[in-house]
Amino acid sequence: MSAKIIDGKAVAARLDQKTAELVAKLGIRPGLAAILAGDDPASHLYVSLKEKACARLGIAFKKVLLPADAAEETVLAAVRRLNDDPDVDGFIVQLPLPPHLNEDKVVASIDTAKDADGFHVKNIAALLLRRELVVPGLVAGIMELIGSTGAVLAGKTAVIVANSRVFFEPLAEMLKRAGTGLQEYAESYSPKLRSQCRSADILIVAVGKPNFITGDMIKPGAIVIDVGTNRLGGKVVGDADAASVKEAAGWLTPVPGGVGPVTVAMLLLNTVKLASKRRFGT
Amino acid sequence: MSAKIIDGKAVAARLDQKTAELVAKLGIRPGLAAILAGDDPASHLYVSLKEKACARLGIAFKKVLLPADAAEETVLAAVRRLNDDPDVDGFIVQLPLPPHLNEDKVVASIDTAKDADGFHVKNIAALLLRRELVVPGLVAGIMELIGSTGAVLAGKTAVIVANSRVFFEPLAEMLKRAGTGLQEYAESYSPKLRSQCRSADILIVAVGKPNFITGDMIKPGAIVIDVGTNRLGGKVVGDADAASVKEAAGWLTPVPGGVGPVTVAMLLLNTVKLASKRRFGT
Repeated sequence: MSAKIIDGKAVAARLDQKTAELVAKLGIRPGLAAILAGDDPASHLYVSLKEKACARLGIAFKKVLLPADAAEETVLAAVRRLNDDPDVDGFIVQLPLPPHLNEDKVVASIDTAKDADGFHVKNIAALLLRRELVVPGLVAGIMELIGSTGAVLAGKTAVIVANSRVFFEPLAEMLKRAGTGLQEYAESYSPKLRSQCRSADILIVAVGKPNFITGDMIKPGAIVIDVGTNRLGGKVVGDADAASVKEAAGWLTPVPGGVGPVTVAMLLLNTVKLASKRRFGT
Repeated sequence: MSAKIIDGKAVAARLDQKTAELVAKLGIRPGLAAILAGDDPASHLYVSLKEKACARLGIAFKKVLLPADAAEETVLAAVRRLNDDPDVDGFIVQLPLPPHLNEDKVVASIDTAKDADGFHVKNIAALLLRRELVVPGLVAGIMELIGSTGAVLAGKTAVIVANSRVFFEPLAEMLKRAGTGLQEYAESYSPKLRSQCRSADILIVAVGKPNFITGDMIKPGAIVIDVGTNRLGGKVVGDADAASVKEAAGWLTPVPGGVGPVTVAMLLLNTVKLASKRRFGT
């Protein structure tokens, strides 16, 4: 068996078309901003990908650059300015922040109505209660990728390998809404990890460990969504060992070209939705 | 300076009086149940304390004992039976569960309307959105203990030393509602732990490490709430090194006799509130 590759770029292109249509319908220029602290080349690359996508889709983009040694108060002040900026409909703080900064505190200071990433704890809480403003782009993107396989989800078992419940909870909620029968949280160091993975019809991996999931951990025919983006010997690889996983899985997202472009596309769609809500109340 | 000791038993006694009045007013016998798996002596002690308190206050109590090697499905089936039991208004799963069991999955299977501990993720989510059915007894208990000092909270800095955001988030929310100016999360292994603690007007510690917080980490005059219950050489001690912390703090909860009895009292008050809601819709 050799898994079919889920084409993230094609899914992203379809989402971009939807976003462009929504921008045209609104008749305004929505605004996205990003706070970027420090010199991490990957972070700069990710922000520039978002900037380019905005340019393509008629969304204004504002980049707030801060030095790597910016004081916490400086970062919080930058967040406050974007909270108050009438031209900004949504914004993100590019993570990771330099290690001396408290990411939780910074994210918690974002106005929930402008939380373009959707990971503010109050937005996650709203999602769990089915009252969300937006679904986090990463979560919504994963659902699109799974949906693009055409697989029937009813009664299936989804296993999410992650080390953060802030990621697990909203994804489990969306999987449940889509009809999966079980949503399991598996921490990377759990002694039951292998058996949990082998029971997964849908396996989502987000642990940041290169090639961590191998083919022998995969249920034959499973849908595998690889959220990892790891640098290994000058190459970008996922959390799944693509070579061996492909032999067992039915579907696999590539890295790069899977979760990444879809998450960016969802960020822009979310920005337009926030703009619609903020400017037109709907 | 020598800290005043916050008398948890006295605070619990006042709460018990309120609970007894509410039970009398409702004119029914509310029902609490506890699922207890395995032979951990401390867990058995805690459950028996809850049972005795129920007997005092006119609340029916049901104990569901399971063997230490109970299968996950057995525990989930016990939860389902209590979810469906018309005599049970609220119930708890005594933690920790034996290590082969998935605590999150078990707690997630509790009917949120019967979640007497209030730590179901959907109940935490509701709390963060100010739509809660109940406040977790541990969180509400801590707020009562702080309130019993008579201290003005407006503009004060609260630091919560914990290794779980499921504990931090609802407590931070309640501290914010009470007027504190800052609520900080401090993980026990954070390099900034010491400076965060020294900035705290209110310091809450819940890490399960005996005598972890020492007097030199305390802002003079601070209110210190010690959630830890650790066994050390046959004695029960908290996460705060009481001897040295007392020299710096303004107020300190003892272990035992601080957070413990107040949490039990709040559990019973929550049970009666859930009974009122379930049986009378209010």
